[in-house]
Amino acid sequence: MLTSHKIKIIQSLDKKKFRQKYNLFLVESNKIIKELANSRVKILEIYSTKPEELKSLFKNVDIFEIDERELRKISFLQNPKDSVAVCSLETAKIDDSKDRQIILDGIQDPGNLGTIIRLADWFGIEQIVCSQDTVDLHNPKVLMSTMGSFTRVNVCYVELEDYLKTYQHPVIGTDMQGESIYKKEFPSKFSLVLGNEGNGMRPNVEQLLTDVVTIPRFGKQQSTESLNVSMATGIILGQIFSDQV
Amino acid sequence: MLTSHKIKIIQSLDKKKFRQKYNLFLVESNKIIKELANSRVKILEIYSTKPEELKSLFKNVDIFEIDERELRKISFLQNPKDSVAVCSLETAKIDDSKDRQIILDGIQDPGNLGTIIRLADWFGIEQIVCSQDTVDLHNPKVLMSTMGSFTRVNVCYVELEDYLKTYQHPVIGTDMQGESIYKKEFPSKFSLVLGNEGNGMRPNVEQLLTDVVTIPRFGKQQSTESLNVSMATGIILGQIFSDQV
Repeated sequence: MLTSHKIKIIQSLDKKKFRQKYNLFLVESNKIIKELANSRVKILEIYSTKPEELKSLFKNVDIFEIDERELRKISFLQNPKDSVAVCSLETAKIDDSKDRQIILDGIQDPGNLGTIIRLADWFGIEQIVCSQDTVDLHNPKVLMSTMGSFTRVNVCYVELEDYLKTYQHPVIGTDMQGESIYKKEFPSKFSLVLGNEGNGMRPNVEQLLTDVVTIPRFGKQQSTESLNVSMATGIILGQIFSDQV
Repeated sequence: MLTSHKIKIIQSLDKKKFRQKYNLFLVESNKIIKELANSRVKILEIYSTKPEELKSLFKNVDIFEIDERELRKISFLQNPKDSVAVCSLETAKIDDSKDRQIILDGIQDPGNLGTIIRLADWFGIEQIVCSQDTVDLHNPKVLMSTMGSFTRVNVCYVELEDYLKTYQHPVIGTDMQGESIYKKEFPSKFSLVLGNEGNGMRPNVEQLLTDVVTIPRFGKQQSTESLNVSMATGIILGQIFSDQV
């Protein structure tokens, strides 16, 4: 049941501190909640204005019917959809067997992390390794912008420098002075590193790169100086996978 | 001077109706206003908390110093920067001499249009032709997300079906059943058409395509079904320009 105590806990879950305190996070909308059925995410309970859509998929989960007014109280969306699932927070462990992965050093914008997770899912990249100060995966805005892809990509947080010192394969970063992505021959096993939106990657991480690539700019001299980090990720991945066909 | 009458007019300019009524639109932040110096955009006046930064660039423009409180009144940003430039609204005319252009059929999200304009600028695509119901270029959110690129790309609005019937070069659209972008040989003159976020392009526009391409998905069967329209644009342009190097 949606008690006022429960409402208070749910409302606190937009903050990382409280997600960690309660070991809980939220997933919103039936469309995305349905994707949890095939994932390792453990749903504890669901509050829904349309519970019928979910009952057959989640036979062992308590699904409580609520009204629009109650939904607005517990949703983090500007326009609440239909359901809020309260899920158990489990910290993902790094899987060293992945041939290709993305590394994020200090990405701050929830939309960028979400978009990069969706891209990884599209291109079949199964792991994203993040620095500790990268925006939290379970931030409601991140989860929404993955469009459900977070259930299929392992997103883990590590001490990045320590991790990279032990990593055995090429570590590819981006820089204006790098080799053109159109000329580069990408190895079969590697990490692609993207840095913070404003400052790029930390110098200590940059020193651990083995390869540097760039996306050539075709516009005039005075054209835009940069692409958004998630767009750059998409264009580079698009190019890496052009060798696969 | 920033009279209360002027404030009222400026505040109304987030709506297309009032931009058209007054023939005005706003550009915010010194960083982006500076880019107007090399563009055809005509600035009528500037209100700024940091007028010194602008004076040498805009000698013939009235620049009024205002305080933070006044800036908050006339800015459309959640976190107002430093300046608001009131500019003359001029409708761009289509330029038939462009070899490569993007066509947008019903794009609704301001961030998507802004991102696509920035991409066009990066890749040196000088014109974007939009259907009449595509989100308005002068929407403050569109302009901000172009990061100044709107000054270098001709964005015009037309009756799309009528226009395409007279257009002489290949018209390339996207569809799951299209030819892989990695196998397609792109012609030297063409339009690339992207459709509405939810519904894609209109059937009447789709019928006028001469070529259809797709971005292959490398993730597992159950991976994400789609990419955001601006991301798809970026990956396709990235591939088109791979032939150029």
